[in-house]
Amino acid sequence: MDIKQKFGKNLKRLRLEKNLSQESLALTADLDRTYIPSIEKGLRNVSITVIEKLAIALNTDISEFFKD
Amino acid sequence: MDIKQKFGKNLKRLRLEKNLSQESLALTADLDRTYIPSIEKGLRNVSITVIEKLAIALNTDISEFFKD
Repeated sequence: MDIKQKFGKNLKRLRLEKNLSQESLALTADLDRTYIPSIEKGLRNVSITVIEKLAIALNTDISEFFKD
Repeated sequence: MDIKQKFGKNLKRLRLEKNLSQESLALTADLDRTYIPSIEKGLRNVSITVIEKLAIALNTDISEFFKD
């Protein structure tokens, strides 16, 4: 599993733990709503500013996105 | 301090802890040697694939880059 897939898998896990839809996470994180599904599929090489937005929106630590 | 500056500060700390020059880190991480100084200055919105390359080159956990 490459880093993009690992990140996407963790993003989906964290989002579902908070019972958030992809649309509401995108809204909260101020990201385009089509971006969340493509990140979760491991298709995006996200940047640290996007990572920070997602961590704030999910009220979680950035390290959570990189867990095995 | 924004996320790019925090990342840069931690990258410099981790690199110096390993007594690596910017050039040797760039070589080990397979990154352009001019990229490391600009990341350390907080000027770069690095992506997860670059983060992974740096973590492997420094033999450190990705979470180390996001410590306060």
